Amino acid sequence: MSFNTFGHMFRVTTFGESHGVALGCVVDGTPPRIPLAVEEIQRDLDRRRPGQSRFTTQRQEADQVKILSGVMTNDNGVQVTTGAPIALVIENTDQRSKDYSDIKDKFRPGHADYTYEAKYGIRDYRGGGRSSARETAARVAAGAIARKIVPDMKVRGALVQMGPHKIDRANWDWDEVARNPFFCPDRAKAAFFEEYLDDIRKKGSSIGAVVEVVAEGVPPGLGAPIYGKLDADLAAAMMSINAVKGVEIGAGFGAAELHGEDNADEMRMSNNGPVFLSNHAGGILGGISTGQAVVVRFAVKPTSSILTPRRTIDRSGAETDILTKGRHDPCVGIRAVPVGEAMMACVLADHLLRHRGQAG
Amino acid sequence: MSFNTFGHMFRVTTFGESHGVALGCVVDGTPPRIPLAVEEIQRDLDRRRPGQSRFTTQRQEADQVKILSGVMTNDNGVQVTTGAPIALVIENTDQRSKDYSDIKDKFRPGHADYTYEAKYGIRDYRGGGRSSARETAARVAAGAIARKIVPDMKVRGALVQMGPHKIDRANWDWDEVARNPFFCPDRAKAAFFEEYLDDIRKKGSSIGAVVEVVAEGVPPGLGAPIYGKLDADLAAAMMSINAVKGVEIGAGFGAAELHGEDNADEMRMSNNGPVFLSNHAGGILGGISTGQAVVVRFAVKPTSSILTPRRTIDRSGAETDILTKGRHDPCVGIRAVPVGEAMMACVLADHLLRHRGQAG
Amino acid sequence: MSFNTFGHMFRVTTFGESHGVALGCVVDGTPPRIPLAVEEIQRDLDRRRPGQSRFTTQRQEADQVKILSGVMTNDNGVQVTTGAPIALVIENTDQRSKDYSDIKDKFRPGHADYTYEAKYGIRDYRGGGRSSARETAARVAAGAIARKIVPDMKVRGALVQMGPHKIDRANWDWDEVARNPFFCPDRAKAAFFEEYLDDIRKKGSSIGAVVEVVAEGVPPGLGAPIYGKLDADLAAAMMSINAVKGVEIGAGFGAAELHGEDNADEMRMSNNGPVFLSNHAGGILGGISTGQAVVVRFAVKPTSSILTPRRTIDRSGAETDILTKGRHDPCVGIRAVPVGEAMMACVLADHLLRHRGQAG
Amino acid sequence: MSFNTFGHMFRVTTFGESHGVALGCVVDGTPPRIPLAVEEIQRDLDRRRPGQSRFTTQRQEADQVKILSGVMTNDNGVQVTTGAPIALVIENTDQRSKDYSDIKDKFRPGHADYTYEAKYGIRDYRGGGRSSARETAARVAAGAIARKIVPDMKVRGALVQMGPHKIDRANWDWDEVARNPFFCPDRAKAAFFEEYLDDIRKKGSSIGAVVEVVAEGVPPGLGAPIYGKLDADLAAAMMSINAVKGVEIGAGFGAAELHGEDNADEMRMSNNGPVFLSNHAGGILGGISTGQAVVVRFAVKPTSSILTPRRTIDRSGAETDILTKGRHDPCVGIRAVPVGEAMMACVLADHLLRHRGQAG
Repeated sequence: MSFNTFGHMFRVTTFGESHGVALGCVVDGTPPRIPLAVEEIQRDLDRRRPGQSRFTTQRQEADQVKILSGVMTNDNGVQVTTGAPIALVIENTDQRSKDYSDIKDKFRPGHADYTYEAKYGIRDYRGGGRSSARETAARVAAGAIARKIVPDMKVRGALVQMGPHKIDRANWDWDEVARNPFFCPDRAKAAFFEEYLDDIRKKGSSIGAVVEVVAEGVPPGLGAPIYGKLDADLAAAMMSINAVKGVEIGAGFGAAELHGEDNADEMRMSNNGPVFLSNHAGGILGGISTGQAVVVRFAVKPTSSILTPRRTIDRSGAETDILTKGRHDPCVGIRAVPVGEAMMACVLADHLLRHRGQAG
Repeated sequence: MSFNTFGHMFRVTTFGESHGVALGCVVDGTPPRIPLAVEEIQRDLDRRRPGQSRFTTQRQEADQVKILSGVMTNDNGVQVTTGAPIALVIENTDQRSKDYSDIKDKFRPGHADYTYEAKYGIRDYRGGGRSSARETAARVAAGAIARKIVPDMKVRGALVQMGPHKIDRANWDWDEVARNPFFCPDRAKAAFFEEYLDDIRKKGSSIGAVVEVVAEGVPPGLGAPIYGKLDADLAAAMMSINAVKGVEIGAGFGAAELHGEDNADEMRMSNNGPVFLSNHAGGILGGISTGQAVVVRFAVKPTSSILTPRRTIDRSGAETDILTKGRHDPCVGIRAVPVGEAMMACVLADHLLRHRGQAG
Repeated sequence: MSFNTFGHMFRVTTFGESHGVALGCVVDGTPPRIPLAVEEIQRDLDRRRPGQSRFTTQRQEADQVKILSGVMTNDNGVQVTTGAPIALVIENTDQRSKDYSDIKDKFRPGHADYTYEAKYGIRDYRGGGRSSARETAARVAAGAIARKIVPDMKVRGALVQMGPHKIDRANWDWDEVARNPFFCPDRAKAAFFEEYLDDIRKKGSSIGAVVEVVAEGVPPGLGAPIYGKLDADLAAAMMSINAVKGVEIGAGFGAAELHGEDNADEMRMSNNGPVFLSNHAGGILGGISTGQAVVVRFAVKPTSSILTPRRTIDRSGAETDILTKGRHDPCVGIRAVPVGEAMMACVLADHLLRHRGQAG
Repeated sequence: MSFNTFGHMFRVTTFGESHGVALGCVVDGTPPRIPLAVEEIQRDLDRRRPGQSRFTTQRQEADQVKILSGVMTNDNGVQVTTGAPIALVIENTDQRSKDYSDIKDKFRPGHADYTYEAKYGIRDYRGGGRSSARETAARVAAGAIARKIVPDMKVRGALVQMGPHKIDRANWDWDEVARNPFFCPDRAKAAFFEEYLDDIRKKGSSIGAVVEVVAEGVPPGLGAPIYGKLDADLAAAMMSINAVKGVEIGAGFGAAELHGEDNADEMRMSNNGPVFLSNHAGGILGGISTGQAVVVRFAVKPTSSILTPRRTIDRSGAETDILTKGRHDPCVGIRAVPVGEAMMACVLADHLLRHRGQAG
């Protein structure tokens, strides 16, 4: 990862600001002759799109993606990749000509306003500019392509905690995820979140969350020790998502509390090859996939755009207060679910190509 | 990060196996004319060195580092960097000619044995080969050079949890860290750990831990969004350390439980410039340093080398049991403290050079 | 350089095919607060644009560039860079709905048709697809941004040979370059080329050329030995341009014929610091700039799109003939001049940032 | 390529100075289970080793290479790669305790003395330090490993020109290369060079040369457009070799003089697949290998270490003269032959792995 590009063989470069002309990405290193329809990308984008329930920002963005390059119709009339870079563009349509004077010169606490200013000496204050979560649309688009490279892997995400409220894992039902506005696999908890988050939203507050992303069908052997470990790349990928403050694999922080005999996953043979009797490792040992499900969780902080006045300073150094009006997600963790899936898919696609290159 | 190299401007490439001829690293991109004595590197290595208490492996390694290149004595008689790559080598002296036949063909649960075999079709079984924690000596050596690049930053680590037992943060005393064999900043808890870990050690078991690394004196502005965020690079750096299963910044997973008004750090002015009234952000917002202390925690799983027999399979696929004798750390989290510091120092040095390159 | 990205700190990723929707690039790592108007980019593009004389392809492309991201209007009303990636897009307007059936299945000798097919198993035959010289428009656009990063460096190119005919260096006049359709600094030779190339064009043939690019004002110290040498990066940059088959620095291949005492540039002192008495080195010693003009020459082969029938095979392996109709440059070396300038500017900008990062 | 590392999947990092403790390299990304004996590396090193005839420097270096990591003995008793990084070290044994006071403060014209000083503010003057051609021993060692990755490719080099004297290509005999001290494939010309270079050597002068490296057995499809073109990577690889001032592929600069109908290589079918009727392309079209022999030539300038006094300045800026005594190659182009081969092998190995990664 460096600047605005990530990946080694499957490489994604994103660009664009919240309220600029457009945002998008260039996806490089895609294997050739993979069927790729724009609808497949759009489908993933639609899951991330704001304004679909009262629990996400009311900003209305069509998020219509266009493919500019890297595909062509083959002899069978199917649009496929050519191996050339695939450029995707999403125009910003809802650039409400709003008055930004209230945040133009003030640093919103918890946002990147002050740090961008400190780094660059200039800051695109319109909707957060480059630091806006809107950038994650480009990740989701890239992730849709990544999925096509690893069609045998099933990458799914779910919201497993909101505020202090964790789901009941006994209730886990993947089908439930699509049925509620929280991507929550626990039907009962989803019902609870409806009321819980409504209350937070009405108060103009916000709340954090934990997202879990699971990849099944990952073959053993993916990962490139020592500094391209699968878990290290996943950690960077997830931590690079806006508002994420923690990442864990498998037992994660819980592993700190375990004894060796409880943590290590024992092995047996089955007709289908080696099996593990548990998955504390989260599908990764020594930075390399075990063949079990790869399990990653990440913590998303509450958005800092809230209706309560907060103390801050302005660009001149004067002390002041700020209250962030606007259309914000009361729980940004919700829309982080498809983003986390996309990052997982991108990392897995990259590692598949890297593995094939070295050990192919 | 890719394969065995990490960093973009300050680049570290490590090599070597647990029981090979030697291990070491090549440190590239170091600014020229920085005083660098081999003793400065040795000092950090000595902190990581095994065999210093009964709570770390009894393997006896002198871990004497040699500088092969990249330095010279300047006109003032001081050894300084030249800007050329600095190669460091540590010979393996305690390559006990032990009998590895008990692990040569069996996969130790919780270790990387199976995954290396799955990936490479071959595995250096002698002491874990490349996946041995011994590789971290090279990181510590590189970190000692990194510290010289960021002399105004103070990077310190501490063990803050062992098993379910967390330190009392009210007792935090940095000076205490050097006084006990656990790098623990809480004197009372260190006393407790002495007995606690002795018990685990005698039983042939092991236990997990949590390590916290804090960097003070980091200027605002370090970090390279979107995919070279300071926290993303730190997450990868820490997750790449052996046995680490989770990483968090600032409030970390705790942020998931917070409301926006509790999480966002408010700002005021002081005579020394902007100040924050709290540090839930862990010194990083939008992937860029705020000027506050950068705070990272990571979870270390218990070593899987224990005296209790575990179920596993061998290379032929036959089911069997394994019991790992040998000289192992009952809590590998302890020696992860200087390693975590080294990784933090490397990431900060890299980002300082990157920032200077782009933003001058 | 890897895949479709080049540069280390100043990074350019290009995308797009000859007859696709659009082509463009993402320019990453640009320092913030640099004034950048779209007209500055357009100006350079206009120099490369086809259809400006009868000596370049008659394809009509407006080559209008749009900036999608990475800039904003500052407090003084000037559009400046923000440090975020700058995406540039150029739409393809002259996608003549021509019949490609004659080249769809045949491999044009001298073109990349066969090799793309061999590599990817699929080939975008429409106008050469990704291998079209049209891709160089994106390089020129990126180069225009690079120039803004190194405003004190003057990067200029010229055509110094066409076929066997070299210019007379005694006639070199930089002002002449803009006055003839060949970017030729020798007025007399330009007059000769007019007739010479007309003859080649009318015969449906083509001819090779040599281009020289000179950068003045390059400070001493740029370059990153050993594998990021300034000349190595320039060699890759120029060789990556379509149809380039050779690159040389300073005396270049001529240095093979020299004795040591004739080749090494002697030094004296002046009021402005060290001066060299000659420039056989082409401004680079040991991979690092000397402070003299950096001088690069590259050879461009004749386009293989000619009206003479050539023997080839088709995708099924059958032997056949091919004759490439269409709108082609009789001497592609001409339009390579602004492309070579752009690549030089990009490499210099990258190395300035890299040097500042390490030794700043 | 960046700093002291090159390659994308097959990555080589070198370190070491002419008169330091040791030099060497870390070779990363090597596929596992490849037989690799230290003798195979030594064999290539011996070809580059100085002091083997009166036509190369009389410095006596054993150049004994040691493998520190990345290999192990497999079940069949054969030493093979494990997929982990392979560290190679060559100790400097002939660090003659000579007096460097005559060059310590003076800049030798044509050498990198001034530029290293300008860049780093310090310079390892002992034998040229990092800029010494001695660094190329590490490349040759890495190249020996690369050859094992591409066993079906035959990479051979030859000296084809010394001063203005070119070989007669009609006399080309690969077997002759090993029979004369010039790596010259033309027996008659080799005899001539013997006398010619003796004369230059006795006069204390030096002369340039041109080296040609040919790789046969390269499959079609290697290369990664647009900025990882096979020829672009080869150009960087060759230009990064000390004293190289020009690189060309196939017809090279000669292509500038050709018409399209003479340059483009026509195709026919054979029982073994497509064949080309000529090889002006040097085995590369559009940056991708054609399946023909890959042909690269590079120009090596004469060493600047000569016995004739030259005008220069010293570190204080005072004008002075310098005369470089010492043990130098009268034609450094000779020993560049195995170095060029090594770089070719490294680039091909890298591209094989990259191609396998993307296009499988």
